[in-house]
Amino acid sequence: MAAKNAFYAQSGGVTAVINSTACGLIQEARRHPDQIGKVYAGRDGIIGALTEDLIDTSLETDEDIARLRHTPGGAFGSCRYKLKSLEQHKAQYERLIEVFKAHDIGYFFYNGGNDSMDTAWKVSQIAEKMGYPVVCVGVPKTVDNDLPHTDCCPGFGSVAKYVATSIREAGYDVASMARTSTKIFVLEVMGRHAGWITAACGLASGNAGEPPHILLFPEVPFDPERFLARVDECVKQYGYCTVAVSEGLSDAAGKLIAESGTKDAFGHSQLGGVGQVVAQLIKDKLGYKYHWALADYLQRAARHLASKTDIEQAHALGVAAVNLALQGKNAVMATVERLADRPYRWQIGDAPLAEIANVERKMLPEFISADGFHITEACRTYLQPLIEGEEPPPYRNGLPDYIRLKNIAVPKKLEAFAI
Amino acid sequence: MAAKNAFYAQSGGVTAVINSTACGLIQEARRHPDQIGKVYAGRDGIIGALTEDLIDTSLETDEDIARLRHTPGGAFGSCRYKLKSLEQHKAQYERLIEVFKAHDIGYFFYNGGNDSMDTAWKVSQIAEKMGYPVVCVGVPKTVDNDLPHTDCCPGFGSVAKYVATSIREAGYDVASMARTSTKIFVLEVMGRHAGWITAACGLASGNAGEPPHILLFPEVPFDPERFLARVDECVKQYGYCTVAVSEGLSDAAGKLIAESGTKDAFGHSQLGGVGQVVAQLIKDKLGYKYHWALADYLQRAARHLASKTDIEQAHALGVAAVNLALQGKNAVMATVERLADRPYRWQIGDAPLAEIANVERKMLPEFISADGFHITEACRTYLQPLIEGEEPPPYRNGLPDYIRLKNIAVPKKLEAFAI
Repeated sequence: MAAKNAFYAQSGGVTAVINSTACGLIQEARRHPDQIGKVYAGRDGIIGALTEDLIDTSLETDEDIARLRHTPGGAFGSCRYKLKSLEQHKAQYERLIEVFKAHDIGYFFYNGGNDSMDTAWKVSQIAEKMGYPVVCVGVPKTVDNDLPHTDCCPGFGSVAKYVATSIREAGYDVASMARTSTKIFVLEVMGRHAGWITAACGLASGNAGEPPHILLFPEVPFDPERFLARVDECVKQYGYCTVAVSEGLSDAAGKLIAESGTKDAFGHSQLGGVGQVVAQLIKDKLGYKYHWALADYLQRAARHLASKTDIEQAHALGVAAVNLALQGKNAVMATVERLADRPYRWQIGDAPLAEIANVERKMLPEFISADGFHITEACRTYLQPLIEGEEPPPYRNGLPDYIRLKNIAVPKKLEAFAI
Repeated sequence: MAAKNAFYAQSGGVTAVINSTACGLIQEARRHPDQIGKVYAGRDGIIGALTEDLIDTSLETDEDIARLRHTPGGAFGSCRYKLKSLEQHKAQYERLIEVFKAHDIGYFFYNGGNDSMDTAWKVSQIAEKMGYPVVCVGVPKTVDNDLPHTDCCPGFGSVAKYVATSIREAGYDVASMARTSTKIFVLEVMGRHAGWITAACGLASGNAGEPPHILLFPEVPFDPERFLARVDECVKQYGYCTVAVSEGLSDAAGKLIAESGTKDAFGHSQLGGVGQVVAQLIKDKLGYKYHWALADYLQRAARHLASKTDIEQAHALGVAAVNLALQGKNAVMATVERLADRPYRWQIGDAPLAEIANVERKMLPEFISADGFHITEACRTYLQPLIEGEEPPPYRNGLPDYIRLKNIAVPKKLEAFAI
């Protein structure tokens, strides 16, 4: 069989290590020139395929591709753009196949979360139906850590390491100041539906009394009275209290706590601000001075503090995706399989896209402590290996030295297509 | 002369490297047992002296003292507690001398900012007057970088490195997402009166178009129209726009912008939130989707990303303070003197406390670009060396391994004293 080109796209919110996957994938593809011609990347994700805006990664040097391993963000651009059902968006799926055909693309690698796996699965179906078979392989990526059939999702381990480090460091700060000044510190972290990132903050407190003292999960309805009682208990016992709160914290009726606070003045519903709401609640009811931080994009872009485990898994999954495709494994996602907890051992596996698309993996109930305010030992056992190891980027002039690729476009061959 | 004990206190907001100063100071004192007996530290800063709550640092091992070099926060606790004039608080100054006398303390090292240098100076005066001479040496510390007579202030270089790294990383993230999602990213940083930290963010943009695109300084009155025009220009030119804003951003009348926004609902004036105010302004007027982050304590506690230059200067100033004291230099502060910009060369100097107390060093006007939205080359030349070099802490279980000292109290000899 003559070599076919490959198409790779990054999807959804980017991470500190999604480029490590791109790095592994492109490097591995370059090792098989007899089977894979060029790797084209979608500029701004799947939109690049729809608009035939392809990037020719063969024009990047091996050195620059290697530097993707230590560069955060999405090197080719990403997008939040979900293709709907085949019925609703049939023209778009057909356009994808048309673009693939025009550029002799025989492999489709989609690097994303749930929605992307759903899209990859649908593309594999329609390609078959249209008589232009394309091997479709999903590559997991999401800080939300909510994909099934894989031990974890690349991107999550690095966010986990960042938030746990950050709340530990802020805890040292607050502990110093608590006698006469700030007694409360609240860190708001990502996680709309699942508390994985909030749980990761808990890794910083190895012993009783160490920050963070309280975790507020989206899975546990917020009970102000119980929360305030626990805060007060911590301040009386330790002199201060640190809290990690998920952006998705909700009350018993399912209403976001973020929407009950400072946001009303503007009348908008964008998340971000629940940290201040709970901090201000403490101030109002208990009178303690607070500080709060909103990590936002800093947490998922912090390549300078990425987990080596995460970087390695992200890279290995990129490599694996190519090998799965070369084995003709269609409509699967490369996965991480845990073999042992401590020391952590893992291997690459794969799972059918059909079983992954639109299935969300929730936090396990047994990972949350009985009082709802912390993590259990079982949770630590699961999370601990994911944050281990450091692989700092090179520094130049005191700052991480990241790469911006040339990202040269492949000449278009088709008519324009409106998305 | 028989050896006298020394008293060391940390003051005001702590930093990622104030313990590096403590480390240098205690290590150097231990090298002169003939002249310095024990180093006592104030528990929670100067309050520890007033309440005779002294920590015996001689009970800590050399290894643990060495670990202070890589531990953020204040190892002995700090406080926001300013002694007023000698007339108003005479009893407190007398109490200090009484405690010093009771514990045979002949050296007073005060590690802080402007207020602390003022206190150290006053103590030197009253000690003389009360016939119990104490050698008083100030050691600079403040992320605000606003002490005169020193090239920079320990703590600042590490915050500078953290914020510049953070906005660079977030910039890579936003650039990836901008086509279909977030186009605006705002990072709020510390700096109530001086824009040093905001300026440091500017180091991340070496070339035109690189994040951060806009800096909002407290020194430049906020002009919403001009700001929005510049934001729109950036989005049209680069596809996105990143902004670093100082918590102290004010309008032409001197009113804090933070107080014009989300804070009103609660009616409190604590800073923090200006980032959201300007981001929301962009959304309301230009319609661009935004994300914003509030670094808060994370920026000044981030020892994992501290500047090696900063760590070394902090340590050297602790060492120097002891040597100044042993030379009998009373009422001085140890300083950093810049000898050359590139490569950066510096040496330790000293300056009279009387010339430092309550003098604030502002950002130089020539450090802000003509349009008020960025830094000049002169500013880069000044700031660049302060963020250079890395000296990461040791990691254990994937997280920085910081030390908590035993902090054993010295037995009290005096009656209690109400503060």
